[in-house]
Amino acid sequence: MKFEIQKEVLIHAVGVVIKAISPKVSVPILSGLKITATSKEIIFVGSNNDISIQKTVPLEKNGDEKAKVHEEGSVVLNAKFLNELVRKVPKDDITFTVEKNNVTKIKSGKSVFSLNGFPAEEYPKLPEIEGEADFTLSAGDLNSIVKQTAFAAATSELRPILTGINLNLKDGLKAIVTDSHRLAIKELKLAGEDRNVTIPAKALIELSKVFEDQEEQVEVILKDTQALFKSHNLLFYSRLLDGNFPQVSKLLPTTFNTTLKVDRKGLSAALNRCALIESKNKVVVLEVKDKQAVLTVSSPEVGQIEEYLEDFEIEGKDIKIAFSYKFTQDALSAFEDEKVQFQFVEALRPFIIKGEKCDSVTQLVLPVRT
Amino acid sequence: MKFEIQKEVLIHAVGVVIKAISPKVSVPILSGLKITATSKEIIFVGSNNDISIQKTVPLEKNGDEKAKVHEEGSVVLNAKFLNELVRKVPKDDITFTVEKNNVTKIKSGKSVFSLNGFPAEEYPKLPEIEGEADFTLSAGDLNSIVKQTAFAAATSELRPILTGINLNLKDGLKAIVTDSHRLAIKELKLAGEDRNVTIPAKALIELSKVFEDQEEQVEVILKDTQALFKSHNLLFYSRLLDGNFPQVSKLLPTTFNTTLKVDRKGLSAALNRCALIESKNKVVVLEVKDKQAVLTVSSPEVGQIEEYLEDFEIEGKDIKIAFSYKFTQDALSAFEDEKVQFQFVEALRPFIIKGEKCDSVTQLVLPVRT
Repeated sequence: MKFEIQKEVLIHAVGVVIKAISPKVSVPILSGLKITATSKEIIFVGSNNDISIQKTVPLEKNGDEKAKVHEEGSVVLNAKFLNELVRKVPKDDITFTVEKNNVTKIKSGKSVFSLNGFPAEEYPKLPEIEGEADFTLSAGDLNSIVKQTAFAAATSELRPILTGINLNLKDGLKAIVTDSHRLAIKELKLAGEDRNVTIPAKALIELSKVFEDQEEQVEVILKDTQALFKSHNLLFYSRLLDGNFPQVSKLLPTTFNTTLKVDRKGLSAALNRCALIESKNKVVVLEVKDKQAVLTVSSPEVGQIEEYLEDFEIEGKDIKIAFSYKFTQDALSAFEDEKVQFQFVEALRPFIIKGEKCDSVTQLVLPVRT
Repeated sequence: MKFEIQKEVLIHAVGVVIKAISPKVSVPILSGLKITATSKEIIFVGSNNDISIQKTVPLEKNGDEKAKVHEEGSVVLNAKFLNELVRKVPKDDITFTVEKNNVTKIKSGKSVFSLNGFPAEEYPKLPEIEGEADFTLSAGDLNSIVKQTAFAAATSELRPILTGINLNLKDGLKAIVTDSHRLAIKELKLAGEDRNVTIPAKALIELSKVFEDQEEQVEVILKDTQALFKSHNLLFYSRLLDGNFPQVSKLLPTTFNTTLKVDRKGLSAALNRCALIESKNKVVVLEVKDKQAVLTVSSPEVGQIEEYLEDFEIEGKDIKIAFSYKFTQDALSAFEDEKVQFQFVEALRPFIIKGEKCDSVTQLVLPVRT
């Protein structure tokens, strides 16, 4: 194999597929990414147990030569090393030449790197997925789903299904995430057959980082154990999580006793100050009383913080409720509205946060017993 | 004690004295900084075993009111907490009120913080140092000393004296640092009595971060166990290191067999690429031969890097010498010259790096036996 490639093109391609390579692997070849040069394109593949990514670089784009293949072939090279190297080479073009025993010479200007490579045929194969797209959405919508729900996924593997984002396709798409202490829902208007799958949140977080153009259309093909996201020159495979995602619709209260509409940024800054006190379980107490709304956090060692909210409207009963400022802060990050609305039932029942205008996002937080 | 102070003034003062507060302390009051309000000024003090810093904020500066004292007094407050808090308060002015048992109310806008304070009289006293300055230098010169030599200090406490910067005042000032594998010397033209002290490098690194104006003059008063650096509204105390600093002048070779003059940035970028291979002891081999100069690093696992230098001039014999790319990179960071000059004796003898134009800095690196 021998090819030349432009530095910036290589940096981008390696940067994309490296997201599928785990920093710690037991089999050395899995620390590598596979490069294949053909007469038409150069193909980069990264793979781990959860996701695989294939990024294709055409030799030419809009008449500009991006790469040139002198001899077809393929090799696997250490991804972390290559990723650092390509950012540091002295010149704008780089030549790869595979020599004996997969040793690969990488030349740029007066720098010559000889990397020990691995045989390409020993690299994991990509899943075989074919067929029509189950649905199509824009990269921007995909990013919204991730930004507005992924934080609510469980990080522990106690109940693996809760580490995922549930995609429920039925009269549109509902993305649902819960770690059993909170719940995030994002709804999108989409056409497609009824489907219900759960994709690891980590996989969708990596996927959302790949796109440069938010308008780009992404085709989603769902099979029994795998999902494939296809866009321009990109294939992104993720395994699906096994098991039934909990029925969450019954958790959402429908009648409320107290409504608090409040300036989002002001509340976020106040919660941010509350976080200065490292209280047990990151708990803040909100008291709505006498037309005032006050957040309080206290710790016997450090002291106490009281935040008197500004720019708010209260409807309904007084309430005193304790909750995680961390979860509430996460939930607020899902909104861009100027004002958000908190809807409470009572002190020990979950409450809901909605944007003033955007109604495609619902956040639910469970209170804490103090 | 009760006073008001402008947020930006407070952020700066707390940011300065917190440099003297260790993140982990066994006695809780030592995690605090002392604030004293008088009729003329507000005084902030931070202190640990090695250094103490006092920053004074006059109530008025150029006719602008910066702070207002309603009641004199003093208190000690947790420094880390205060430092984070003052950056997050909602308004531009902050009121401090000490109540019963040193509980301190800090108010800004609608935020009220009640911090558990400590009694000011239990805070460590500042060293008593008086008298004339031994010498005076600008903040800029002080920063140059730190930037050009401090990296060469030992980080282990095996030989405590080697963790310091030796200041040798005799026909000018020589700042000397060595960890016994390399040596950095910075010379400054200065007037003053002969003195020879060694100050912990860490203390001078902290001191160098304090100044906003590089033209500011700093008076240095040296006593038996302490040094005091005095400038506008600032007192910075450091303990001195005990023991004799090694005689380094005899280590510097004076005759050389090979001289390599090379573009500093190009060499630095090449060493940076060499660092991609994590070789044993971070060793690179330089070979000067047949009018070429090549750096080589190799590791049996990863592969090999060869960097053919550009923009260089060689005088004298061929040489092949192994050295730490880390130490050499550090040494290069001391220069701003376009070209630097390496002077070699032979493969197992220390070599010297000098700037093409600047001759106030000398760097010496010991080679590695391979």
